[in-house]
Amino acid sequence: MTDPTAALPVAVDAMGGDRAPGEIVAGAKRAADELGIDVILVGPPDLVGDTLGLELVACTEVIAMDEDPAQGVRRKKDSSLVRAAELVRDGKASAMVSAGNTGATMGAALLRMGRLKGVHRPCIATPLPRPGSAPGVLVDAGANSECSPSMLVQFAQMASAFSTARFGIENPKVGLLSIGEEASKGTPLVKDTHALLADPASGVNFVGNVEGRDLLNSPVDVVVTDGFTGNVALKTLEGSLTFLLNMILGAFGTNEETKAAAEVLLPYLAPVAAELDPEGAGGAMLLGLEGVCIISHGSSSATAIRNAVAVGHDLVTAGITESLRQAVAMA
Amino acid sequence: MTDPTAALPVAVDAMGGDRAPGEIVAGAKRAADELGIDVILVGPPDLVGDTLGLELVACTEVIAMDEDPAQGVRRKKDSSLVRAAELVRDGKASAMVSAGNTGATMGAALLRMGRLKGVHRPCIATPLPRPGSAPGVLVDAGANSECSPSMLVQFAQMASAFSTARFGIENPKVGLLSIGEEASKGTPLVKDTHALLADPASGVNFVGNVEGRDLLNSPVDVVVTDGFTGNVALKTLEGSLTFLLNMILGAFGTNEETKAAAEVLLPYLAPVAAELDPEGAGGAMLLGLEGVCIISHGSSSATAIRNAVAVGHDLVTAGITESLRQAVAMA
Repeated sequence: MTDPTAALPVAVDAMGGDRAPGEIVAGAKRAADELGIDVILVGPPDLVGDTLGLELVACTEVIAMDEDPAQGVRRKKDSSLVRAAELVRDGKASAMVSAGNTGATMGAALLRMGRLKGVHRPCIATPLPRPGSAPGVLVDAGANSECSPSMLVQFAQMASAFSTARFGIENPKVGLLSIGEEASKGTPLVKDTHALLADPASGVNFVGNVEGRDLLNSPVDVVVTDGFTGNVALKTLEGSLTFLLNMILGAFGTNEETKAAAEVLLPYLAPVAAELDPEGAGGAMLLGLEGVCIISHGSSSATAIRNAVAVGHDLVTAGITESLRQAVAMA
Repeated sequence: MTDPTAALPVAVDAMGGDRAPGEIVAGAKRAADELGIDVILVGPPDLVGDTLGLELVACTEVIAMDEDPAQGVRRKKDSSLVRAAELVRDGKASAMVSAGNTGATMGAALLRMGRLKGVHRPCIATPLPRPGSAPGVLVDAGANSECSPSMLVQFAQMASAFSTARFGIENPKVGLLSIGEEASKGTPLVKDTHALLADPASGVNFVGNVEGRDLLNSPVDVVVTDGFTGNVALKTLEGSLTFLLNMILGAFGTNEETKAAAEVLLPYLAPVAAELDPEGAGGAMLLGLEGVCIISHGSSSATAIRNAVAVGHDLVTAGITESLRQAVAMA
């Protein structure tokens, strides 16, 4: 069931991210060369510079990483982010990819593409590493600080469809993030959501509450939470891994003897680092829109952008938007 | 300003924790022998067994790790947890230590010791490792799923006094856990709390919002959040570190060559592990009561219990209860 949209190019915000435009353009080029995916860049020609032969849709403005998202989207109608979203809306691109201002990316995608019918609010689905098997998914990773139980149910429905489309997991197991396994644990939001998810009418394969310690190597395929808790948890997870890695690398560099021992071990540690590297996952997806929007990490390298383009293209090919539409309509 | 209470023994719940009573009794004995701190055990004599020569206050019941906390405390009035809290209330112990059911520990301490005047709700303050300097403090680590802005302000006041009493940090810097640095980020609870903390009338040294990635090696001395978010963040942190350590240890054990290299590195990695080990910190403290209650990790070993007894004794010696009383009264 290939979506005909998949033949369209993927639009890449050439100015989004801490390492734009250099790494972004290089990553887009690699996606085109190595994967054979059509890519178009979006950005002001004078700022983007060398496009490495890729097509560039010219615009005049850029929304900065630290700019107020709502104001940026409202005022900068000729920005790379807004124009990229319009390319998807207008049937000129299959998906958009940005490593830029996350709030502005969400705003531009929401305003220009529009929500799927019946969706209360779009949400961010972020892959969670599970060494040796397909990644899990955390939803909402930060789009909505305030959520209602029915919003969380819809996030679970959409993230389940995403888990299937992206990772091939049939009937994904869904867990609700809380502070204990018992249905009686947590905030009123969590308890009310637990009751709704446990009802077969939710249409999801709900297995109960999970805890913060379950996020990595998760026993469930989809972890549902509000965007505030999800964002805190995701940043805590990233921060903890980075912190420990840096401490270990520091110990490795203590003296000549430790450096020599580390040399022996690095080839065996590299796969561990690769499993945990968000760059490998290629970014998060904004679920609930009439189009595909991939949100890459602000620090994205060329490799991350290459992977994000591949993810966007693959999801369109898998018919993700139609799957999401059905997931929400079924409930 | 030594509290006269400090001359009293520390009461240890001999039956609390996954490794009770063996590791608990051994840890209490080590505190007595190595640190010269008076300790009394609390528990049913037939279950505790050999007390290694320590005094035992006999009771007949135990609240299990997975028992409903409220019911356990209400029904088991002759349990080790309830009796330990009564020893503090009755002036027979300076502090209590338990690695048992956290909810039941909180309940027993709250019901038997009572709240400090003016305290809305007690909260859990947990140390956060900061290699090379004094630990930070996370509050609330799980006592209160639902919080109001004024509760969070009080948590900040009490945790600041705790940071000073326990780690010697004068005028500790306080950060509010959110999903961005800007005051406009987060839930209504976070935004309202931000405004209250920023008011000098709060009496705390508020420096603004911090994020999940700031929890380890934190730029602030006290991180304030509600007990739901705090518990999720703390478990995410612990889970991430454990996960990565296990992956690394797995890589170390790949073959003879990697095992030999790991042998060289382990002496240099041991200090890293020690810095991050919750056992070294000796446990969390329940803040806001008319008495000192130290909550140790459920998996506590003898070393963790030894350290928890030391922390309880030191905090009483430093006059923590009086400091907390003043911190709350000032505002």
